[in-house]
Amino acid sequence: MNTKVLGVLGGMGPLASAHFMLRLTLLTPGERDADHIPAVLWSDPTIPGRPEFLEGRGPDPLPALLRGIQGLRQAGCGAIVIPCNTAHYWYQPMLDAAGVPIFHIVDAAAEDLRAAGIKPGPIGLMSTAATQRLHIYQDRLSSLGWDCLVPDADEMAGKIAPAIAAVKANQVGRAYEPLRQVVNGLAARGAQAVVLGCTEIPLGILAGPADGLQAPVIDTVDSLARAAIRWAKGPPAA
Amino acid sequence: MNTKVLGVLGGMGPLASAHFMLRLTLLTPGERDADHIPAVLWSDPTIPGRPEFLEGRGPDPLPALLRGIQGLRQAGCGAIVIPCNTAHYWYQPMLDAAGVPIFHIVDAAAEDLRAAGIKPGPIGLMSTAATQRLHIYQDRLSSLGWDCLVPDADEMAGKIAPAIAAVKANQVGRAYEPLRQVVNGLAARGAQAVVLGCTEIPLGILAGPADGLQAPVIDTVDSLARAAIRWAKGPPAA
Repeated sequence: MNTKVLGVLGGMGPLASAHFMLRLTLLTPGERDADHIPAVLWSDPTIPGRPEFLEGRGPDPLPALLRGIQGLRQAGCGAIVIPCNTAHYWYQPMLDAAGVPIFHIVDAAAEDLRAAGIKPGPIGLMSTAATQRLHIYQDRLSSLGWDCLVPDADEMAGKIAPAIAAVKANQVGRAYEPLRQVVNGLAARGAQAVVLGCTEIPLGILAGPADGLQAPVIDTVDSLARAAIRWAKGPPAA
Repeated sequence: MNTKVLGVLGGMGPLASAHFMLRLTLLTPGERDADHIPAVLWSDPTIPGRPEFLEGRGPDPLPALLRGIQGLRQAGCGAIVIPCNTAHYWYQPMLDAAGVPIFHIVDAAAEDLRAAGIKPGPIGLMSTAATQRLHIYQDRLSSLGWDCLVPDADEMAGKIAPAIAAVKANQVGRAYEPLRQVVNGLAARGAQAVVLGCTEIPLGILAGPADGLQAPVIDTVDSLARAAIRWAKGPPAA
């Protein structure tokens, strides 16, 4: 393939990575195949569960993540994205092994918050419990002036977790209503916008009407796709 | 990754390959990430246009196709699918180079015709002009008892070609109406079912109501995904 080949480390889950490839294509301006971005998707749904490991209930996913990074490098990829928020817990060891840029999903989301005109202040964050507890978003966004409001423990266990499980089981329709309630709860608490910081959550939100939501949402899948497109359409690789 | 990794040679076009990954995931029975099929998508939208080469207007795509096959083999793939019908013109040289099975999209479509209970006799075929002219479907299906009715030259130039171009330009909504008219024209001529033998055409058909169609359609993207799933969920690799 030509110089700028995008690597996509996916399979976490597989529907989220397929959806990322679709959004990458739909967000790329183009009329013909050749206007689109050469990409290799390494979709490995056998990568051990990230939340499970972090909760002490399963094997370490890092070796499988690094195998994916190595596979993408061997395929000639010049930059890598990872459409899984929780996997960003291993961002630094993956970056160290990659030898090419890995675009961080939180930086991509921050770029979209800026583009949407969201001022410093309170925003909402919807993610897995692991992403929330590891502060994958909070610390990085806080340093930029945005304070993350998060769902309470009951909302996490009773709405977010079942919605994510429904998406992973190909039941996107069942995920919308609980996710809608959480978005609107965060808006009522003052969130100017809600960051959908889990690659499954946007799939559930998209399965129902947008006008049911009382705050704008930042779809981090799209944010990551836009970061990749800026790279691919930017200056040629050195 | 584990033993059975599916290779997907894509980018022809990129929306069709992303859609294939989505359908592969949605058609796979599963509750958890680990139930899904490890896969590597080699999406190279810079592969020279297949119809253009066959019409003497562009470079030979075979070297780029073989580079993709090689990349998928290096990534450890144990079988390969190609969600682009016209690319099957190069099936034999790709198979010779692959060293692993490549599931032919026409065989996959035949399996779905059988499963849908379509008896030997007339069926419709909607494809690119190149796929039609090269008899990629007709000869293989004819040997199994199905006779392909194809759209006439005016329908090919005035309806099929613009609909495919609309999908490649991310305008799926504009593709539905002309495609619907062609499906119904083939049904009126006696087609018991219509094979959508171009990976872009199902995307246009899906953008409008199914009850506007007067014959059942065989979505060859789904046929190919089902062939891959049968392999992945079948006996372990030797």
